[in-house]
Parts: sequence; C-alpha cells; structure tokens
Amino acid sequence: MSVTAAAGFEAAGVAVGLKSTGNLDVAVVVNRGPLRVGAAVFTSNRAKANPIIWSQQVIQDGIVEAIVLNSGGANCFTGSFGFQTTHQTAEKAAALLGVSAGDILVCSTGLIGTGDEVFRTKVLAGVDRGIAELSADGGEAASLAIMTTDSKPKRAVFSGNGWTIGGMAKGAGMLAPGLATMLVVITTDAVLDASDAEATLRRATGVTFDRLDSDGCMSTNDQVTLMVSGASGVRPDLDEFARALTEVSQSLAQQLQGDAEGASHDITIDVVRAASEQDAVEVGRSVARNNLFKAAIFGNDPNWGRVLAAIGTTDAEFDPYDVDVSMNGVRVCSQGGPDRPREEVDLTPRATHLLIDLKVGEAAATILTNDLTHDYVHENSAYAS
Amino acid sequence: MSVTAAAGFEAAGVAVGLKSTGNLDVAVVVNRGPLRVGAAVFTSNRAKANPIIWSQQVIQDGIVEAIVLNSGGANCFTGSFGFQTTHQTAEKAAALLGVSAGDILVCSTGLIGTGDEVFRTKVLAGVDRGIAELSADGGEAASLAIMTTDSKPKRAVFSGNGWTIGGMAKGAGMLAPGLATMLVVITTDAVLDASDAEATLRRATGVTFDRLDSDGCMSTNDQVTLMVSGASGVRPDLDEFARALTEVSQSLAQQLQGDAEGASHDITIDVVRAASEQDAVEVGRSVARNNLFKAAIFGNDPNWGRVLAAIGTTDAEFDPYDVDVSMNGVRVCSQGGPDRPREEVDLTPRATHLLIDLKVGEAAATILTNDLTHDYVHENSAYAS
Repeated sequence: MSVTAAAGFEAAGVAVGLKSTGNLDVAVVVNRGPLRVGAAVFTSNRAKANPIIWSQQVIQDGIVEAIVLNSGGANCFTGSFGFQTTHQTAEKAAALLGVSAGDILVCSTGLIGTGDEVFRTKVLAGVDRGIAELSADGGEAASLAIMTTDSKPKRAVFSGNGWTIGGMAKGAGMLAPGLATMLVVITTDAVLDASDAEATLRRATGVTFDRLDSDGCMSTNDQVTLMVSGASGVRPDLDEFARALTEVSQSLAQQLQGDAEGASHDITIDVVRAASEQDAVEVGRSVARNNLFKAAIFGNDPNWGRVLAAIGTTDAEFDPYDVDVSMNGVRVCSQGGPDRPREEVDLTPRATHLLIDLKVGEAAATILTNDLTHDYVHENSAYAS
Repeated sequence: MSVTAAAGFEAAGVAVGLKSTGNLDVAVVVNRGPLRVGAAVFTSNRAKANPIIWSQQVIQDGIVEAIVLNSGGANCFTGSFGFQTTHQTAEKAAALLGVSAGDILVCSTGLIGTGDEVFRTKVLAGVDRGIAELSADGGEAASLAIMTTDSKPKRAVFSGNGWTIGGMAKGAGMLAPGLATMLVVITTDAVLDASDAEATLRRATGVTFDRLDSDGCMSTNDQVTLMVSGASGVRPDLDEFARALTEVSQSLAQQLQGDAEGASHDITIDVVRAASEQDAVEVGRSVARNNLFKAAIFGNDPNWGRVLAAIGTTDAEFDPYDVDVSMNGVRVCSQGGPDRPREEVDLTPRATHLLIDLKVGEAAATILTNDLTHDYVHENSAYAS
C-alpha cells in the first residue's frame, strides 16, 4: 500500500518510456485533504538538481497538494532548460488538479546530465497519465515507478492510535547522508500543522536516513517528503507520532541498506560510550567510509586493525589504546590490542554487527552501511553504458 | 642505488623470515657523516604504531644516526610488548653501531596487530645481520626489503650541483595523506642544518606525498624521513635543494600511485582557478575519494556528473553551475552542463587526466589518485588470509 495506506491520498505509477525497460517511471501522489500540510528535507549537496531547487521554494509555506516523481533521469546539470522542465511539470500537474503550481513538489532520479527535450516530453506525458490514473490503491504502482537500480520496491506502513503512516522509498547507490539521502515520500492521515510536521520529520530523518551511509557518495537529488492529509481527524500525541515516523523511516532506511548496489553484507555499526552523540556518529561514519574495512567484510575478514585505523582519523574523544571492538558478538580487540582469535568470528551471514566501545562517556549512535564488493564496482562502472 | 646514491650512506636489506615468501624484510640505512642531521614527517592518524611513537621522540633533536625498517608486521596495536620491541630494535642497532639509541629511527609496515615474540626475535636478528651486511651499494637491497604488497621497488635519484639526493619508498594500500602516507627514506650528501632539513622536507612532502590519495585510507605507520650526511661538503642553494627534494618526492609519489593495489588507472586531478590552494586541494580530494567516480573511471566511463556531485559536498568557493570539467583533454561539461559528447573521451590509457576549472580565482592544486577496481576489492578482502 505504501503512500496510499493513509486516508486522504491517491497515487499512480505509469510508464512513459523514460526507462528503456518499459517499466513504470513516473509516480504521482496527491493529497485530497482536508489538510494539505507538507514538510521536506533535502540533500545538503551544493550541486543540487533542478527539482531540488524548485521543491525548496515550494515547501516554504508548508503547503503541498501533490508530488510528481520520475526515474530515468536526474534533471541535474541540465541548465535553465532543465529547470523549465521541472517548472512545467509542476504547472501541468497544478492545471490538471486545479491547484497552484507553487504547491506541487517535483523529484527526479537517474543519471546526472539527463534532461533534454525527449525527457521533458515524456515527463509531461507521465503527469497527464499519472493524474488520469490516480486511485486510492495506487501506492504500490507509485513505489515501483520511482525505482532505478533498486532490485525491489521499499514500502512501510505504521498503524497508530486512529491514524496511519505510509511510506515509499527508492535508493540503491549514492547513499550518504546530507539531510536526506534518497527519494522518500511518507504520508499520514494524522492531524498535524506544518511546524509539527517539519519538526517530527527532522527528528525522524536525523536518526534514520541521516545515519545510512552505504558508499559515502552524496546525491544531488535526494529528498524526503512528509505529506499530511489529516483525513483521520485524529490529532496524535506528538511524541508517539514522532516515534512512529521514526519507525517507518528506519524500516525504509533498512530496506535501502538491504538493497544497496552490489552489497553482500548489511553492516550495523554501533558506537557506544562516546563522549557525545556527534562523536559516536563521526566514529561510525569514518568506519562506514573506509574502503579497506568494507573490502575486508566482503572477504569475511574480521580485520579490526582497519577499524582502529579508521577511527584514528577522527577528532572524537577516545584513547586508541583503550578501545574495544567486537564483530558479530566476538570481542576481537580489547584496549587497542588483540583479544579473541579471528577464527571465532563468523562473518558469513549478510547481517553484520560491529560494536565499537570508546569507553569515555554515555552517548551512542548507530550507522548503517554495506561492504565493498566486486558487484559494487561492476554495477557502478557499467552504470551509464 | 636509491638511498646509497648520496655519499656518506651505507645500507643493507636482509631476509629473516618476517615474510612467508622468504623475501628481504629488514632494511638498515646508516649515516656515516660527517653530519648526522635528520628530519621526518609522520602520519597524522591518532592511532599510531609503536615505531611512530618512538621515532617522534628520536627526531626531536634533529640527529639521526640510522634507520631500521621492517616489512611483514606493522607493530601497531601490540601493546607495551610491541613498544619494547621497537625500543630493543633501536638499542640493538645503537650498540652495534656504537651510537645512542636515541638517534635510531624505527619503521614497521605490514598487518596491524602483528608484533608478538616471534616478530621481535626476527626483527632483532634482522638488525644484527643488516648491520653486518652494510655497504655503500646496499640501497637497492634496502628498497626491496621494505616492500609489502608492492609489485616493484620505488627509487629515485637527483644529481644536484655538487650534491646528490637518493630515495626509496614503499606503499601500495592505505594510501591517503596525513603528513606522510607511506614509508619513505631520502638521503642527501648536501650540507644542511636540522632546521633547513625539516623546512625543505615539509615543503616537498606538502605538495607531493600529501597530495597522493589512492584509497582515502590513512595508515597508522607512515613516515617520510630525510637523512643528511653532508659528505659532499657542498652547501646547496636552499631553493634549489627544495626543488630537487620535491622532484625526488614527486617521482616516488608517482611510483606509489602507479603501483597502487589493484589499480588500472593513475588519475591526475588538476583543480585550477580556485579561490585558494586549500580550496583546490579540498575539491581534488573529494573527487579522489568518491567511489562512484573511481568505479566509473575503471569502466572507462567519463561520468562528469559524479565529479560535480563530489565537489558539491565541499565547502570550497565555486558555483556548481559555472564549473568546467575535462577528461583526457575533452571538455565534457561546461558551466555545469553537458558539453562535448562522451564518446570523444578515450579513457583506455592507464594515465588519466581530470581537469576541474572552478573559475573563481588564481590558485591550483594537483591530487593523484587511482580507480576503484575488482582487483582492489580482491586484494583487500584477501589481505589477511
């Protein structure tokens, strides 16, 4: 069900030939109200795609009527022609829906530099057909239409106390945190105002999508959007809603991790007893971005030396000679020296757990990443061909 | 000739079984004077190997009699036993040479966590045999003894105006800048005092080894050492000497790049018209560390979108929509949009040139890196096995 699980939303996914495979490639999600509240977080990459530049303006007033998303082309670095394409996409959707273009978000994903006249014609056709096919059970088709190199759609639903949250996500490469790191649309029929929507969205993304770092490469197009219809008529407890939104976000983030390009291990890096949460995140991220560590995990090699070498490059508070490192429950390093024999560690399961105990404070953080594999190199060297 | 090209130096390389292959694994380089000036730069990784901790003390007074280097074990995260091993190595060399242990540098390279009693016994035996075999043409053997996964030794010689510089280097993985990024020993018979030695060494490494970033992984053991015998009796022009030292350093850095683990392309990233040299370095390094860009080059794919996505993550001064990118002489992107067709770019040669024109200032910098290949993943997943 994804984005149509919550009451008040209609969606569609159509195929207009942006993908050479003929698969669905344009998604539309419309908020039928009664509220039209929206919030979004965007990539912090300074190289922003045209849809990001547009959507950052649209979101200013906290009102979102609909979102149009396309795969098969990022419309990034496509100049003023590309920006006009985004603008026309919003205008066309607005005209068909009888609303203002300034309340239509646009997202694009695919190869950077793709956004010519053929692209424009197809996207506009997709808006036409998508809006014609809108339905209250279109969430599944929409989640298929935003896929690029994803091997499967990502969806999540949470049933709250009289209200519902539904979500869809796409993302398989260029996964690294900015503010958002992929295309995600989350809908809810709970009653929220714009400031609560934004606050709970930032709270949820800050500890979920922002802590997914599959390959250290930040996208130009990433956006996480929350759309609020209020159709349940129920005003939720805000803490409860934030926890539910975090749960949906974490589920989608884990699905992104599990489908990351070429990965053979999903690595959960828990950094504990850090002086601050920021330190814990910095330490976790430095390990998540260390190619030697990631290649070792691919080879089922519990190479803790590479973990220590990675965290030694950070400014976090710790003594390299007092750190403990465990892999899949076996403490292979204690106080910066060898502990249990490496043979005791079984790294054959896809789910991999790395525990780093800094022993200086009370803070902790979890970073999700993947290993560095032959398939990652293959998929990303053949991507554009 | 490497380190024995300059007058006043003797060296040796011996095999004591640290490498399972039986290849040479301990090197000794001794300064016979008349000067005993030394300078060194060290990894900035906070996780420092025992030999780094030792050598940072030795270098304080600017006097270096000899340097002992071993491959086959990094002696890092090996506790106080490991530090004692380094100390005993220096003491043994000092006793045999009739000098102070406080003037003996020690370097180790190999797997982190290796440094047990067997390791100690072998290294000490290596000191014994190495000093017994010292000769004025031992530079070649010494350059072989410091190799780990290197496929060939790295050496360079510069003949100045009455003086000579010779050097050797090892390094094939974990190549990323700290202050130094590998084991390097450079010798000269020019007459220099300690402060000039240090100043010219920092000047040379700052624009050579510091700008080599093969895989973004900073080592725990890296050290670049300059030893000055003064045996030529010639006091060089300092600018001339610094340029020569830079040339030797650049030659060794390029040899390290050319032999980087698993690489199939040597990528020279020239960043020009930056607001500052620091900006140029930051932009070049962000591209050098972008796995998607590196995988694209492996696949001979001139994917300029990944270049712009990488530089968009920096704080450097530039407008993403005014940047030009050229690959091997073809401008594939101008003002943040597509320019020449990708088909015009030939990325089949190993030597690859990426030119990034930021168009905001007068500064420039060059970063050396490599592509991300199947062989890199393979070599680094099977390293410890």
